[in-house]
Amino acid sequence: MGFFSRDIKTLDDLFVHTLRAIYYAEHEIMQSLPDMIDKAHDPQLKQKLQAHLGETIDQVDRLEDVFSLHGADLKSIKCPAIDGIIAEADDVTGEAEPQVMDAALIAVAQAVEHYEITRYGSLIAWAKLLGRDDCATILDRNLQEEKAADRRLTDIAESTVNLRAA
Amino acid sequence: MGFFSRDIKTLDDLFVHTLRAIYYAEHEIMQSLPDMIDKAHDPQLKQKLQAHLGETIDQVDRLEDVFSLHGADLKSIKCPAIDGIIAEADDVTGEAEPQVMDAALIAVAQAVEHYEITRYGSLIAWAKLLGRDDCATILDRNLQEEKAADRRLTDIAESTVNLRAA
Repeated sequence: MGFFSRDIKTLDDLFVHTLRAIYYAEHEIMQSLPDMIDKAHDPQLKQKLQAHLGETIDQVDRLEDVFSLHGADLKSIKCPAIDGIIAEADDVTGEAEPQVMDAALIAVAQAVEHYEITRYGSLIAWAKLLGRDDCATILDRNLQEEKAADRRLTDIAESTVNLRAA
Repeated sequence: MGFFSRDIKTLDDLFVHTLRAIYYAEHEIMQSLPDMIDKAHDPQLKQKLQAHLGETIDQVDRLEDVFSLHGADLKSIKCPAIDGIIAEADDVTGEAEPQVMDAALIAVAQAVEHYEITRYGSLIAWAKLLGRDDCATILDRNLQEEKAADRRLTDIAESTVNLRAA
């Protein structure tokens, strides 16, 4: 399954394996965001999710740069954690009050961001230990975007969506 | 499935539903930690995971207090996100170098912490909007413990485990 496999012996193996898992995760996020944008009611939330879709496309490109720099084959590895988190997004349906749906969508989107934040944090630490500061620098750009996206979601939640849902 | 259901109409419904999902998650974590402690090689990592098992037991008790304060029925709701994250922990097997296994265990444990951090963050925001500062205060104790656990894992990763794995 996703995270670990019997082929992993060294820290470099673990780095490449996890890179493939986050590559899978970013692709899945890229595919699920349009549906979340459709479901969102608050215009500001829609706009932020749309902006994050653009960022996600750039992040996938950066991951491809990391594969290339490292010399590892470009592959994705199925990751049950992100599948589980995205399953929650798919399940936000149209039966609740619009503001409650928006609050739920923000919560799911923040779960996605936090998953990515922790994975990028591990990858960056490992890249540095492996002497691959070139890879770490690129991965850190993705990490900083995820952290900023998480903060923006908190801002929207606090300023508009949650207030209207209460 | 886990996060959302057709019974959710209001922010209070969403709060109770998410409370049940994190109650499920904390139970699953409580059950998976002994296996992670067994697999860990670094004595400091073992000790930190053991300490977090104790905290998790307290956190489950606090969640039961929140159910009781709120008046909601004590129930858990299956949460595919935490199932996916824990599946990654189950999959860390004994074929890798011990230090690499420890690095992978820390990464999985941090994914668990971040999932909890984001869920508690949403729950606390919603509790405050619902005028349930009493619930928010208790949930914030869990949140602060999760954040501290995440920082401790980063410290171990940086100071010992990752250095030896490189």
